[in-house]
Amino acid sequence: MSISELVDRTIGAVGPLDEAAMAAAEARQAVLTKPPGSLGRLETLSVQLAGILGEAVPQVRGKAVIIAAGDHGVASEGVSAYPAEVTPQMVFNFLAGGAAINALARQAGAEIMVIDAGVAVDLEPQSGLTIAKIGYGAGNIAQGPAMGREEAIRCLEVGINAANERADAGANVIAGGDMGIGNTTPSAAITAAVTGADVATVTGRGTGVDDAGLAAKIATIRRALEVNRPDGADGLDVLTKVGGYEIGVLAGVMLGAAARGCAVIVDGFISGAAALIAWRLCPNIAQRLIAGHCSVEPGHNVGLQAMGLEPLLNLNLRLGEGTGAVLAMHVVEAAARCLSEMSTFAEAGVSDRDDE
Amino acid sequence: MSISELVDRTIGAVGPLDEAAMAAAEARQAVLTKPPGSLGRLETLSVQLAGILGEAVPQVRGKAVIIAAGDHGVASEGVSAYPAEVTPQMVFNFLAGGAAINALARQAGAEIMVIDAGVAVDLEPQSGLTIAKIGYGAGNIAQGPAMGREEAIRCLEVGINAANERADAGANVIAGGDMGIGNTTPSAAITAAVTGADVATVTGRGTGVDDAGLAAKIATIRRALEVNRPDGADGLDVLTKVGGYEIGVLAGVMLGAAARGCAVIVDGFISGAAALIAWRLCPNIAQRLIAGHCSVEPGHNVGLQAMGLEPLLNLNLRLGEGTGAVLAMHVVEAAARCLSEMSTFAEAGVSDRDDE
Repeated sequence: MSISELVDRTIGAVGPLDEAAMAAAEARQAVLTKPPGSLGRLETLSVQLAGILGEAVPQVRGKAVIIAAGDHGVASEGVSAYPAEVTPQMVFNFLAGGAAINALARQAGAEIMVIDAGVAVDLEPQSGLTIAKIGYGAGNIAQGPAMGREEAIRCLEVGINAANERADAGANVIAGGDMGIGNTTPSAAITAAVTGADVATVTGRGTGVDDAGLAAKIATIRRALEVNRPDGADGLDVLTKVGGYEIGVLAGVMLGAAARGCAVIVDGFISGAAALIAWRLCPNIAQRLIAGHCSVEPGHNVGLQAMGLEPLLNLNLRLGEGTGAVLAMHVVEAAARCLSEMSTFAEAGVSDRDDE
Repeated sequence: MSISELVDRTIGAVGPLDEAAMAAAEARQAVLTKPPGSLGRLETLSVQLAGILGEAVPQVRGKAVIIAAGDHGVASEGVSAYPAEVTPQMVFNFLAGGAAINALARQAGAEIMVIDAGVAVDLEPQSGLTIAKIGYGAGNIAQGPAMGREEAIRCLEVGINAANERADAGANVIAGGDMGIGNTTPSAAITAAVTGADVATVTGRGTGVDDAGLAAKIATIRRALEVNRPDGADGLDVLTKVGGYEIGVLAGVMLGAAARGCAVIVDGFISGAAALIAWRLCPNIAQRLIAGHCSVEPGHNVGLQAMGLEPLLNLNLRLGEGTGAVLAMHVVEAAARCLSEMSTFAEAGVSDRDDE
């Protein structure tokens, strides 16, 4: 299926992992000064990183988190505990450096890029803000499609371009982050459509709706799937019918980063939904995705399991913004550093178990 | 029970958490620009840190990992996959910067202190090595006590002095790390003695013994408990009878760090066993301990649960050296940074849910 020249080319560039680099990394792990396997996930992660980056001794050279913001017509159905005006307010909070992702990105040494993908109001241009508005809030998916097909393609292209920009600037570990009041609702719809799971099992409280709110949210998502009938095997159809602008941009970020040979760290539920769209468009991407953490949102793990991903962290986060992904970057860097910086038994003059 | 002037004074200095600081931290969490509770463990951890450090807005000012090394007579029973000569070899690997803990501590910005607590051979004095040898390898616990009571007290004092030295140098987040071929065996004995759990449920493969080796290890630990009959309620008795020099030093490190108002990050199974000894000597310490990770060793979680601790990370590590604790320092610092660096709703001009 042809989508657009840029999207097609990007998907085509996401190849299999570098087997030779992985074999070399695995061989090196076996002779480092520790019992084999004793670094657990750090060891398997280092081998995956070798395959992704195409380096026998993978190095984290630069980290970036690309935050896409967008509004959702479905927020008018009362699916969120917060008013939609919070979306642009939080964009300015990101730009001012006062959000959780700012604190965590500073700590991790990750550059932040903020994209207006589809905030419902015009945002004053300012330093640090990429205005790539595809629309003024996605359509109310309880009544019709989130966006048109051309808009969905534009989302992917904006994300691909953003990933290329960060890769050009030196990042080889890239995460997406989301901001959009109401966006756990389309994310649950996407997760149900792609995985086939029941809506009730993939719908959570988002920013904090009560029991009645949760029941209404589930009913809204069921209606969205009935009204739109997305084809769960077709990522573009899912994005068009029950997605959102920031979700589409994040799917594009993942495709673009993977095509550039970067490691892609998946954040929480919204990023996971974007990953499901990217995965349907490009099945090869799954092995280039690293699940940063397990969100409190019940649908997140359903989506990760469908892609065969196991989260690195489980800290009961449910904020989005890329927070869990950026926290996980410390673990990703730790995996690379242990592989590259540790001495071998021979170098250190330490007896291996076979020497006895 | 009086142990020694230094130990008694240290235990007496471990007070309850600072309730006022915790209340202030909790109040601040409630007005930061995020849905309440959405940062999960980072929020509860920030409140605990406030209580430990006695600061309403806790700051990680300096990090240190104190690695204690010691040998074990019980290694002659064939309980480890590695020869005892690896203990001094790994000490030199730490000093040369080539071990996993070196890579991880460099990444985390944690200072490393290496103590010879009881390596079986004399180590050449050199920069970075604190020689505080209490004995040439602990006694074979399958045949008699690990050490004498005076030696056990000396272990605690060495650890307390080391923690004081790191605290004086500016660290307020301190982890212990262990190196000692054979030391999962005394750690299982300690865990069984203190928690009352069956030996088979707290004994694992350590660095990698096979099925027959595991069965023999369990039998050895049962014998150690029968021969020595430690009083599980008396931390000093447990250390004396079935402990080890590095384990005793680590218990002292935890007591000393806690007494100085530092946060103590517990590493894996051996550090967990040391924490159990410290906890029996000083029940107040539990709330000042932060469990860094959950080891593959089955006894680790048994010990943590006895103290009411829930690990931050679960990455299938089983190396020791402080590796899991130092990895967890990123999460600890993240918790502090979010609390201190995030803007409030009022500061950022973001609408709270109550504003609607």
